[in-house]
Amino acid sequence: MTHDKLLHPDRLFPALPAQRDIARALYARVKDLPIISPHGHTDPSWFSGNENFDTPADLLIVPDHYLLRMLYSQGISLVDLGVSSKDGSPAETDPRKIWATFAKHYYLFAGTPTRLWMDHVFYDVFGATEAFGPDTADAIYDLIDGQIKSDDFKPRALLDRFNIDLIATTEGALDDLKHHAALDCTDYARRVITTFRPDDCIDADKPQFAGNLDTLSGLTGFNTREWNGYLDAMRARREYFRKVGRATATDHGHPTAATADLPKVECQKLLDLCLSGKATAQQTELFRAQMLTEMAGMSITDGMTLQIHPGSYRNHNAPLFARYGADKGADIPMRVNYTQSLQPLLSKYGNEPGLKVILFTLDESNYARELAPLAGHYPCLKLGPPWWFHDSPQAMLRFRDQVTETAGFYNTAGFNDDTRAFLSVPARHDVARRMDCHFLALLVSEHKITMTEAERLSIDLTYNLANDAYSLGLERKV
Amino acid sequence: MTHDKLLHPDRLFPALPAQRDIARALYARVKDLPIISPHGHTDPSWFSGNENFDTPADLLIVPDHYLLRMLYSQGISLVDLGVSSKDGSPAETDPRKIWATFAKHYYLFAGTPTRLWMDHVFYDVFGATEAFGPDTADAIYDLIDGQIKSDDFKPRALLDRFNIDLIATTEGALDDLKHHAALDCTDYARRVITTFRPDDCIDADKPQFAGNLDTLSGLTGFNTREWNGYLDAMRARREYFRKVGRATATDHGHPTAATADLPKVECQKLLDLCLSGKATAQQTELFRAQMLTEMAGMSITDGMTLQIHPGSYRNHNAPLFARYGADKGADIPMRVNYTQSLQPLLSKYGNEPGLKVILFTLDESNYARELAPLAGHYPCLKLGPPWWFHDSPQAMLRFRDQVTETAGFYNTAGFNDDTRAFLSVPARHDVARRMDCHFLALLVSEHKITMTEAERLSIDLTYNLANDAYSLGLERKV
Amino acid sequence: MTHDKLLHPDRLFPALPAQRDIARALYARVKDLPIISPHGHTDPSWFSGNENFDTPADLLIVPDHYLLRMLYSQGISLVDLGVSSKDGSPAETDPRKIWATFAKHYYLFAGTPTRLWMDHVFYDVFGATEAFGPDTADAIYDLIDGQIKSDDFKPRALLDRFNIDLIATTEGALDDLKHHAALDCTDYARRVITTFRPDDCIDADKPQFAGNLDTLSGLTGFNTREWNGYLDAMRARREYFRKVGRATATDHGHPTAATADLPKVECQKLLDLCLSGKATAQQTELFRAQMLTEMAGMSITDGMTLQIHPGSYRNHNAPLFARYGADKGADIPMRVNYTQSLQPLLSKYGNEPGLKVILFTLDESNYARELAPLAGHYPCLKLGPPWWFHDSPQAMLRFRDQVTETAGFYNTAGFNDDTRAFLSVPARHDVARRMDCHFLALLVSEHKITMTEAERLSIDLTYNLANDAYSLGLERKV
Repeated sequence: MTHDKLLHPDRLFPALPAQRDIARALYARVKDLPIISPHGHTDPSWFSGNENFDTPADLLIVPDHYLLRMLYSQGISLVDLGVSSKDGSPAETDPRKIWATFAKHYYLFAGTPTRLWMDHVFYDVFGATEAFGPDTADAIYDLIDGQIKSDDFKPRALLDRFNIDLIATTEGALDDLKHHAALDCTDYARRVITTFRPDDCIDADKPQFAGNLDTLSGLTGFNTREWNGYLDAMRARREYFRKVGRATATDHGHPTAATADLPKVECQKLLDLCLSGKATAQQTELFRAQMLTEMAGMSITDGMTLQIHPGSYRNHNAPLFARYGADKGADIPMRVNYTQSLQPLLSKYGNEPGLKVILFTLDESNYARELAPLAGHYPCLKLGPPWWFHDSPQAMLRFRDQVTETAGFYNTAGFNDDTRAFLSVPARHDVARRMDCHFLALLVSEHKITMTEAERLSIDLTYNLANDAYSLGLERKV
Repeated sequence: MTHDKLLHPDRLFPALPAQRDIARALYARVKDLPIISPHGHTDPSWFSGNENFDTPADLLIVPDHYLLRMLYSQGISLVDLGVSSKDGSPAETDPRKIWATFAKHYYLFAGTPTRLWMDHVFYDVFGATEAFGPDTADAIYDLIDGQIKSDDFKPRALLDRFNIDLIATTEGALDDLKHHAALDCTDYARRVITTFRPDDCIDADKPQFAGNLDTLSGLTGFNTREWNGYLDAMRARREYFRKVGRATATDHGHPTAATADLPKVECQKLLDLCLSGKATAQQTELFRAQMLTEMAGMSITDGMTLQIHPGSYRNHNAPLFARYGADKGADIPMRVNYTQSLQPLLSKYGNEPGLKVILFTLDESNYARELAPLAGHYPCLKLGPPWWFHDSPQAMLRFRDQVTETAGFYNTAGFNDDTRAFLSVPARHDVARRMDCHFLALLVSEHKITMTEAERLSIDLTYNLANDAYSLGLERKV
Repeated sequence: MTHDKLLHPDRLFPALPAQRDIARALYARVKDLPIISPHGHTDPSWFSGNENFDTPADLLIVPDHYLLRMLYSQGISLVDLGVSSKDGSPAETDPRKIWATFAKHYYLFAGTPTRLWMDHVFYDVFGATEAFGPDTADAIYDLIDGQIKSDDFKPRALLDRFNIDLIATTEGALDDLKHHAALDCTDYARRVITTFRPDDCIDADKPQFAGNLDTLSGLTGFNTREWNGYLDAMRARREYFRKVGRATATDHGHPTAATADLPKVECQKLLDLCLSGKATAQQTELFRAQMLTEMAGMSITDGMTLQIHPGSYRNHNAPLFARYGADKGADIPMRVNYTQSLQPLLSKYGNEPGLKVILFTLDESNYARELAPLAGHYPCLKLGPPWWFHDSPQAMLRFRDQVTETAGFYNTAGFNDDTRAFLSVPARHDVARRMDCHFLALLVSEHKITMTEAERLSIDLTYNLANDAYSLGLERKV
C-alpha cells in the first residue's frame, strides 16, 4: 500500500475543498518547523544514557496508559499486556505475544487519537508499508525491532530525527537531576530540560509527606518544620532545578484549583497539622491551596512559569491500583471550579508584570465559562492546550471553538504533548498543527480573519506562543 | 407532493456531497436491518391483547409527553389536549378537536426531533401524501383512523411491519407480568421481554415504600424488614422477571448516580429508618446508593445487565403534578456527578468479568469529562445512547463527538428508543442510524478511519452492540 | 481596498456553497428589518441631550470593557488606555495616543467578536476604505473624528441611521428617569424606553443597601422597613418606570438564580437582618431569592417582563476594582444552577397566563441540560439570547445547536445587544441575523425544515420574538 493511503496527506483537514485548500496551504508553512515540547514526561535517562530502546512491545505498548486503558476496558487483562503486578505474580514476557494481543484488538481504537499516533509511528517513523493488524503484526514487529536496535534510533538521534528544538521532562522536588546534569557538557544540554514538580512535598495526603520534608530539609539545609524554612527550602530547590536542570517552569497536579492567601500564623499551624499526619481532608486541601499562591509569589521573583493541572481523581480503581500501581489508565477527571478557586491567588498576584501562569483543564465545561474569561482579563494567565483525554482532533476543535472568541489566540500557550511515549511526539505535534490549521481554515473561509492573519497565527500557534509562555528564549519564527 | 419531498431520502446526512455520499452508502447497508429495542416503555398489554389502537389523537398525542410539553410551554392547556385532571374536571374528548389543536401548532416543532418522528409516522407509516398542517389535518386524521382499525395495524402486526426483532418493556418489581406470561406460548415470546425496574421498592422517598416492601414480602415469602430477607426478595423477583418476562436487564432511575458500600449492620439501620418513614433525605439517598451496589452484585451472579438513569428532577412543576400527575413533560434534568458517585460500586465490582453496567446521562457535560474516561477504563461499563432530551440528531452528534475519542465505539451500547410511543419506534431508530452514518462519514472524509472500518462500525452500532450489551443472544449481523 | 474585501458580504455564512446560498437568501429578507434592542445599556442622556459624541477614543475605546479586558490581559495598562483611577493619578489624555495603542494591538482580537464589531464600525458606519491597523490608525481617526462632529452622527440621527425601532436602556430603582421624561413630548419617546433594575434595593450585600431603602421610602412614601411597605414601594417604582420611562421589563443581576417562597413573617425577619447589616451571605442570598419570586408576582399584576441574568462574579480582580472601579472587564462567569434554583418561583407562578420570564446564562452547560427543558415546559419561560461572553458567532451557534431540539425556536426571545457601545449596535444585530440565517441554512440543507419555514423563522427571530417577549406592541413583520 502507498504511504499516502496509510497516512493520507489531507488527514484531519476539513473535507470541504475550499477549506481543505486553506488548511493545506497553512500546514505547508508549519509542518517542518522544529518541535518545542515544553511539558512532557519522557525519561531523562534516555537522553543521558543514549542506549537503544528495548523491544517494540516494551517501547510502544507496556508503558502507554492510553493503550492499556482501552484494552482493559474491553476485558483484556493487564497481565496479557506484560504489566507486572506488585505481588510479583508473572505477567506475559514474550513481547511478540503482547504485540499480537494488541494487533488483534487494534480495531477498538477506531476514532481515537491513539490510532492516529500509532499509525504515524508505524507508517511514518518506521516506514511500514502495510496496514497494521493481526495479519501484518509480525512483519511490522520485525521492521520496528530491526530499526530500534540501530544507532539511528537511539534517543539522541531521535531528537535530531524528530527535529526537536527542546523537550522538557518532569521531576519531583527531591530528584537529584543527575541525568540532566550529565548532559551539561553536551550539545543536548540546551535541548533537554527539566520541570519542577513539587507535589510530593506539598500534598500532605500522601503518606510519605513528612518524610519528604525531612529529605527536603537534608537537601537544602533549611528547617522544613518551620513555615519560613519550608518556603526557603522550596526556593532552594527551584534554584537547583533552574541551575542543574535548566528548568523554566514548575508544575502542580492538585485535585482542585483551590488557592488561598492566609496569614503566616495560620500557615504554620497548617504545616504542623500536615506534618503530624492528623490534618483533615479540608486542611490538606487548604495547605495545597496556600502553596499554590506561595509558588506564584516565588515565580514573580525567579521568573519560572507556573503550570496548574487540576481535576484528576487519581487511582480511581482501588483494586487495580493495589495490584498494579499508578498510571495504568485508571485516573478519571472530575468537575473543576476555577473562578472562585483562583480568586485568592489572582487578587494577590494576578496583576504582577512578568508572572506567567498556565491553566489546564480536564473539564471542558470551563473553557467558555471560566477559563477564557479569566485568561482574557488577567495579564498573568495563559491557557494550556487541551490536556490528556482532550489531546485529540475534535477536542482540540472544541477548545479553539469555545476559547477563541473570548480569549483570542494570544492568551493560549501553544501546544505541548504531555507524553511519556517518546516515539509518539512527532505524531502528537503533527495532529496539533493539522488541527490548528483546520481551525484557522474555518475562520478564513467564513471571512472572520484574512489569510495573511492565518499565516501569522499558524506559526505563532506552532512555535512562538510556547516559546514565550515557557520563557524558553529560542529565536522567534516568522 | 411526492414522498421524497415530504421525507427527503438524504435527510440528516451531511450536506457536503463528499460526506453525503459516504453516509448514503453506509446507510444503505443498515437501513433494513431489524430493530432491536432493548430499553423502552411500550405497554405489554398491547402485545398480549393485540387489540386495535383507539383514535389517532389517543394514539399519537395524548400520551406523548414530548408533545404535551412543547404545546403547554406555548400556553395551550392540557385540558384542550385531552389530558384528564385528577379531580375529574372534564377534558376535551373529541379527538378531532385535539388533533386540530395539534395541527394548528405543528409549526412550533420546527427543528425538534418530534417533528422528525411525526413526519415519519405521517408519511412513512401511514403514507400521507400531503404536508401535515391545519389545512390537511382532517384528511390525515381520516387516513390514519382508517388504517389503525385494520388488522394490519394491530400491535403484533406492527412488530412485523416495523421489523422488530426484539422489544423490551419496563415493569416495576411488584408487577405480575401477566401480559408477558400470556405471550409465553406464542411466536412473540422471544420478541417481547420485560425489564426489572425496582425503584418503587428501593426509593424510600416514595410514600408507598413501606407498603411496597410488605407486598414484596408477600410475593416472595421473604421478610423484607430484615436486610438479608430484603435482598433475597429482590433476588427472587429478578429471577421471576427472567423466567416469566424473559428479562435480561434491570433499570434504575435514581435522582443521582450515588453508590455506596456499607457494612451490613449499617444497611439494616438504614432499612429500619426507611421503613419507619423517618429517614432524612441523606439517608434515603444513601439507601438507594447502597442498593445500586447490591444490584451490581446480583448482576454478577445472575447475568442481568444493570442500567443507571440518573439526574431527573421528577415532577418539577408542583401544581401541574397535583392536578394531572406524572409524565406530562415536567421532569427537568439536573447536573450529575459520576466520577465520585460511582467509585464505591466500581471499586467493589468494576473489574468483575461478565458484569455489564450501562450508564445514561441527561447532563452532556459529563460525556467527555467523566463518562468516556470511565467507560474507557472499566471493563463492566458501557455508555448508553443519548437519552430523553438528547435523543435528537444534533445531540447524537455531540455524544459521538465528545465520547468517541476517549472511549471509542466499542464501549457504547448501541441505540435504544426509550419510548412509550410505539408508532415512533421506526422513526427513532431511523434517525439514530442516519446520524451514526452521518458521524462515520465525517470520520471517513477526514481520513480518520477507512470506509471498510466504517462499514463494519455501521452494522455494529445498529445491531451488534445492543445485542451484546443486553445479552440478547440474537445472531450477530455482519 | 473595496468595502467587500474589508467586510465580505458572505461573512459568517457557512462556507459550503449549498448552505451559503440558503443563508444568503434568508439574510436578504431580514438584513434591512428595523432593529429592536429591548435590553441594553446605552446612556439615556445621549438621546435627551442629543449632543455630539466626543473623540473617537472616548467613544469607541475607553468605555468598552471588551476592549479593555483583552488589552489588559496582554499587559497593556489601563492608564495607557485613558482609564482614570479612583485616586486621581493621571491617565493618558491624548485620544490619538490611546487610539494608536489600540491600533498597534488590534491583531490580538483576531477570532473575537470585538474584531467583527469594530470592523463593522470602521468600514460600514464610518466608511473607512483601508484596513485598520497601526499604519492607517491616524487616517481612520481623522475620518471618524470628522463625522462624529456632524449633525448626522448625533445620537438621535444615529437612531434613524441605524434603523432602530426601539432601544431600551437600564436604570436603577432610585433613578429619576429625567432623560426619559425629557423625551416625553418628542418623536423619540416611543423609541427610547427604560428598564427597571432594582438590584441596588434588593442586594443587601451592597453597603449602601439600607441607605437605598431609606431613599426608596422617601421617593414613594412607603415604610420600607416593613415588608409590606417595602413591596409597596417596589410596586410604586415599577409603576413610575412604566409611566415615566415607558418600561415594559425588569432586570435582575443576582449572583445565582436562587428563588424562594417564604412565609411573610420570615420575610420581615430577613428584611430586618439585611437592614441591620448583620445578615450572613446565606441570608442576603435568601433575601434576593425571595425578592425574585415577589417580582414575578408583581409582573403577573402589572405585565412587566422579568429578566434574570445570574452567574457573574463581579469585580473578581480586587486590586483592579479598588483602583479603577467596576466594569473594566474583570467580571468572571461562574457555574449556575437553574433546575433546583428556580423551582420555588416556577411552582408558585410558572403556570400563570401572561407571566413572561426571560432567562439568561453565562454557563453554556445549562443550555441543553436545564434551560431548554425548562423553557420547553413552563409557559412563562423564554430563553434570552447568548449573553455577554457568548454574544459571538460560534457561541450563537452553540446556543441554537443545544437549545433548539428541546425548546424549539418559539421559546426563545429573539436577539438583544446588551451593550453600552452604541456605535456597535448595528454590527451586533447584523452578526446575530447572519448567524441565525447560518443556523437555519444548516437545518434546511439537512432537510430538517423547509425553506418556507426557514423564511418565516428568520423574520420571527429577527423581529417578532423580541417584540412579543418584551410586550413592545410593535407591528409584527411578515
